[in-house]
Amino acid sequence: MAQTAVRFGILGCANIARQLSRAIALSPDAALCAVASRSIEKARTFAADNGLPSAVKIYGEYGAVLDDPDVDAVYIPLPTTLHLKWAVAAAEKKKHVLLEKPAALDVAGLDRILEVCESNGVQFMDGTMWVHHPRTERMKEALRDEMSFGQLKMIHSVLAYNAGPDFLKNDIRVKPDLDALGALGDIGWYCIRSILWAVDYELPKTVVAMHKPVYNDSGVILSTGASLSWEDGKVATFYCSFLSHMTFDLTVLGTKGALRVNDLVSPFQESYGSFSSISESDFAQLEPGRWAPMPREHRVGSEVPQEVLMVNEFAKSVGKIKGEGLKPDRKWANMSRKTQLVMDAVKASMEKGFQAVELVE
Amino acid sequence: MAQTAVRFGILGCANIARQLSRAIALSPDAALCAVASRSIEKARTFAADNGLPSAVKIYGEYGAVLDDPDVDAVYIPLPTTLHLKWAVAAAEKKKHVLLEKPAALDVAGLDRILEVCESNGVQFMDGTMWVHHPRTERMKEALRDEMSFGQLKMIHSVLAYNAGPDFLKNDIRVKPDLDALGALGDIGWYCIRSILWAVDYELPKTVVAMHKPVYNDSGVILSTGASLSWEDGKVATFYCSFLSHMTFDLTVLGTKGALRVNDLVSPFQESYGSFSSISESDFAQLEPGRWAPMPREHRVGSEVPQEVLMVNEFAKSVGKIKGEGLKPDRKWANMSRKTQLVMDAVKASMEKGFQAVELVE
Repeated sequence: MAQTAVRFGILGCANIARQLSRAIALSPDAALCAVASRSIEKARTFAADNGLPSAVKIYGEYGAVLDDPDVDAVYIPLPTTLHLKWAVAAAEKKKHVLLEKPAALDVAGLDRILEVCESNGVQFMDGTMWVHHPRTERMKEALRDEMSFGQLKMIHSVLAYNAGPDFLKNDIRVKPDLDALGALGDIGWYCIRSILWAVDYELPKTVVAMHKPVYNDSGVILSTGASLSWEDGKVATFYCSFLSHMTFDLTVLGTKGALRVNDLVSPFQESYGSFSSISESDFAQLEPGRWAPMPREHRVGSEVPQEVLMVNEFAKSVGKIKGEGLKPDRKWANMSRKTQLVMDAVKASMEKGFQAVELVE
Repeated sequence: MAQTAVRFGILGCANIARQLSRAIALSPDAALCAVASRSIEKARTFAADNGLPSAVKIYGEYGAVLDDPDVDAVYIPLPTTLHLKWAVAAAEKKKHVLLEKPAALDVAGLDRILEVCESNGVQFMDGTMWVHHPRTERMKEALRDEMSFGQLKMIHSVLAYNAGPDFLKNDIRVKPDLDALGALGDIGWYCIRSILWAVDYELPKTVVAMHKPVYNDSGVILSTGASLSWEDGKVATFYCSFLSHMTFDLTVLGTKGALRVNDLVSPFQESYGSFSSISESDFAQLEPGRWAPMPREHRVGSEVPQEVLMVNEFAKSVGKIKGEGLKPDRKWANMSRKTQLVMDAVKASMEKGFQAVELVE
């Protein structure tokens, strides 16, 4: 633990908290300081199960973490319904906020969180891990290359996993009082984020939800999709589902090239991520049916898992605020907010019988 | 040339006719008997350029082929606007009809063609080649496998190529009087067909065109897309464009597996086609970020190009009618008609400001 390491408290002991406590341990810039659950027993079990050092403080209520002066920042993997309350409370106690996605139930909720973070000078970032993988930056370079990719025309993103009967009955992500956005919030978030990422966060003009979304008996979304369009003719489609085989696809078409990745949010292997690109391919002369050139695989190594890179990145911003008195980096808040805006539009379109929803910033 | 070979006449000397004349030469069940163009010079040049045997008759008008008693069947690669006239004329002269896609400008036109084929006892097939590649049947087997693929949930199909300035100015496929459907007819046909193929030709209930299609100055479609949905919750999206890099993607998601192919209509290599499947994959226990199992590549060899297999298949049906007095196989007509119905619905949705169009058979 470096002298300047950011000391984390974790609010809640969800499965994802396990992955993040490991990431905090692996980050040179972060240290786990405290964990809290609604019951001290659950928190103790979490600490024991994950081999947390004895120095990590164990709390039986979330508020205690916020009152702990040793805690610099909180990671909040609580159900979405609780984000507003606890992210606001954390920011008011000057704790920097790393908030699981979906950031909020709607943009009004997120705006409140962001205002409080802003007025208290604390860093905000949502828990979208894949944007921190070095592959993501390499893919962005490929998309930016006018010569080989050209002008972006179309994006398609699919995020799905077959959640299975136990999840569909019991998981917080299918409970209207906990994660009312269901699959749209849990993985549609990634679809929307990946589309916005591809277009440098230019908001679409129009969002139209696809017919035939699937809801559970409580009205929580189990699968849905939408098409997005921009004024200049760019279009995108996405599909997210708890009912289909695990799929993390992103396809981006340009005038001169195409880029594909099939494991966007969690690479097939932890040590590297790959993607495929093709550029200015055509049928080889006199050889119908032969493409030249063929698609090319790119492999981008990652010395540490992407969640560690996320923690590093967050800790770096917090370090600048703590050490150098800089203001929070608003980049992450802006990305979260645009994702949430599009998500709201998808939901609005679903509620309006799949009518087009015009987006205004 | 076998004793029973089907003797083909070709109406028109489009680029695609070159590929088909080669396919007819390579098919053991077919022989090229005649070619026609609007001018005898163009037909002669075509024959010379493609090294056609001197026995092949050269005509300076299409009708002459239909009047030639040596001709059993015609391949019609004419602009779509001319399909109705010439396919009907051919069938009325008892010539079997292999018709380039899109089969017609609308389902009313196609219905007229199919009626005349039916009443004259001639075989009809459209020129969709990829359905005849052995890979297609192997992919179908993969989709049918309840154990490894489960229930089909989502399909996404992209067909695109960057046609370039000369094509966009001069090609028949961007002329309203010749191929008024533009990219929707030329390659959207494949998107729709691939989606219908995946669902065993069950028509969707609802078709919604995507916002922001691109038209040229004459109102011909240069890029468009749509989402389709079925009563049981299956959904599909497609995108077709003359303005993006060459892309022939089909992705099919099931509850237990997924299937992907990136060169659907024309395999990367002529000697084989490959596709990728994944089934019941999940994150490996205790190793976050590692998928197990990984996607699997399948390679399906093809001794002859897919267009030869199409000619074989067509000739086989014609042979049964000629030799055994059987009735035409209506399977191909049904597939074409459903493709055309969906295409009409996409067009109708575009014309209605992207409203949903309900499909009835």
